[in-house]
Amino acid sequence: MAGFASLAELQDACHHLPKAHAGAAEQVARREATLTKPPGSLGRLEELTHWLALWQGRHPPRLDRVEILVFAGNHGVTAQGVSAYPAEVTVQMVANFENGGAAINQLAKAADAKLKVTALKLDQPTADFTQAPAMDEAAFLEAVSVGAAAISPDADLVCLGEMGIGNTTAAAAIAAGLFGGGGARWAGRGTGVDHAGLTRKQHVIDAALARHAAMLDDPLLVAAALGGRELAAILGAALAARRHSIPLLLDGFVATAAIAPLARLNADAIRNAHAAHVSAEAGHRHLLEALQLSPLLDLNMRLGEASGAAVAVLLLRAALACHTGMATFAEAQVSNKKG
Amino acid sequence: MAGFASLAELQDACHHLPKAHAGAAEQVARREATLTKPPGSLGRLEELTHWLALWQGRHPPRLDRVEILVFAGNHGVTAQGVSAYPAEVTVQMVANFENGGAAINQLAKAADAKLKVTALKLDQPTADFTQAPAMDEAAFLEAVSVGAAAISPDADLVCLGEMGIGNTTAAAAIAAGLFGGGGARWAGRGTGVDHAGLTRKQHVIDAALARHAAMLDDPLLVAAALGGRELAAILGAALAARRHSIPLLLDGFVATAAIAPLARLNADAIRNAHAAHVSAEAGHRHLLEALQLSPLLDLNMRLGEASGAAVAVLLLRAALACHTGMATFAEAQVSNKKG
Repeated sequence: MAGFASLAELQDACHHLPKAHAGAAEQVARREATLTKPPGSLGRLEELTHWLALWQGRHPPRLDRVEILVFAGNHGVTAQGVSAYPAEVTVQMVANFENGGAAINQLAKAADAKLKVTALKLDQPTADFTQAPAMDEAAFLEAVSVGAAAISPDADLVCLGEMGIGNTTAAAAIAAGLFGGGGARWAGRGTGVDHAGLTRKQHVIDAALARHAAMLDDPLLVAAALGGRELAAILGAALAARRHSIPLLLDGFVATAAIAPLARLNADAIRNAHAAHVSAEAGHRHLLEALQLSPLLDLNMRLGEASGAAVAVLLLRAALACHTGMATFAEAQVSNKKG
Repeated sequence: MAGFASLAELQDACHHLPKAHAGAAEQVARREATLTKPPGSLGRLEELTHWLALWQGRHPPRLDRVEILVFAGNHGVTAQGVSAYPAEVTVQMVANFENGGAAINQLAKAADAKLKVTALKLDQPTADFTQAPAMDEAAFLEAVSVGAAAISPDADLVCLGEMGIGNTTAAAAIAAGLFGGGGARWAGRGTGVDHAGLTRKQHVIDAALARHAAMLDDPLLVAAALGGRELAAILGAALAARRHSIPLLLDGFVATAAIAPLARLNADAIRNAHAAHVSAEAGHRHLLEALQLSPLLDLNMRLGEASGAAVAVLLLRAALACHTGMATFAEAQVSNKKG
């Protein structure tokens, strides 16, 4: 199921998707109404338990196998001076992930989640997309397939994140390609470029949009021409999670931009996804609005690495603990609402 | 230190407060700058670690002893039909807390926090404050002192929450008394009153403001006349936490209204406090703005019981795990920012 041999096959997969499990979600709602609290008073925590059951098709839902997938890639566009950090940081940070020293290692532990890091040909950066498509069709499909293969079919929840110096430029280019508005609307400071760097980023995005104008109508071509390997892998992983009916937490701007082409092909293809947070990266809030995703957290984070998604896992665990552990009105002999 | 014999003594305590520990906070900032992430990229998580050290006076800060204090009280104003639930639910829910069946029991466990529930004379509701002050000075000071005595001086973090049928009416009355705007601005649906109930609540608040107009200039008299025992206990607990320099997480609208009189006396008296969340209760967002508190979470919760504060403890644990567990640029041999 994981590999995609052509864009047509990939596109077809986006349109043949399993239904959500309304029955399990209804069981959540029925139990929720009996628990010792005013109806709806746990707010989004109640929504989250409902959502877990809706996709897992199980009541109560469970969070025994939570997987955090981080994909890493390198970007030819870094030659244009769009990042505050040198490109070699990508491979150094992958080593840091493997040695347990990064933020996501601490957060995955706190969330009791398994961290899987996949580096995609870090020694072969994608092409500078101001000059040529970032990836040709074969390279794009290969990265999508790597992402799809990283999904464990029996995971209870998947979090998707990334690492790649230069990739907020790719994310902004994809967002601009799909939704319009140009570099000025979508570029942000990423890891921390100064004003001159931000202006360069905007120009780079506008140059890329001009060069690839002919393919902006096709979301998958946008993903190939303006994206990167780690973004393509996230797209593949998200689609595989949808096909396996696994609930999905998206991390920040880059992860959201990576799955945006899926949503443009078929809004139903990302219906199993929640935005874990809205990041401080300028374009993220616009992009979430465009995709009708309402973020769970707003903590001014902008690290990537699935860090925001890992924090949101804590909310899911809290929600599930209430749903499964609380007493009912009858059990606790608490009087229910008047009249 | 816990007991207050007069309003003058209580007021005096609000004006003689220890300083925060700038040195420990500076140590946090120094280490934070060396960790393998762009500066500031963990957003509010970084702020939270800084804040813990600032009040604990310790680097690294710790979260070994997290206490969740829930105070419960009954309200004479329930006679006016301001709640969707009968008043006996307060005592029933206290039993539910003791038996481990409420939301806060599950959330306290998830947050690895100790839950302490204090019921304040549930068989003696406060007076209906449309007719008389809710509490006289002695009853108010007694409840404040009970709250202050509930603080463990060696706690690393305290969360404050409440249970009390009718207490969103008391909270709205306090907010209106301190900040103006009347019942229409501050009343919300609480546990779920219908439109007629909401209108009654607004009128009840306006009647109380008219009756007690002469004392609205004195924040402590507002707390006594328009509050309730559990709100007074929260005020006392918050002041004691401030005097012991313990970081404080406030739960929702009622807990925030309970400490608002302290803030009106001296803004510095709540400087150790973070708002854990903004609740769905209508007045909470206005009140947080009036107190210049920026909530950590916005999850549409409106349960009380310190439930929002308990969820926010999870954020603090995540923040601290990153601060203490991450590798530095030097340790991980990751290249730092260019130029």
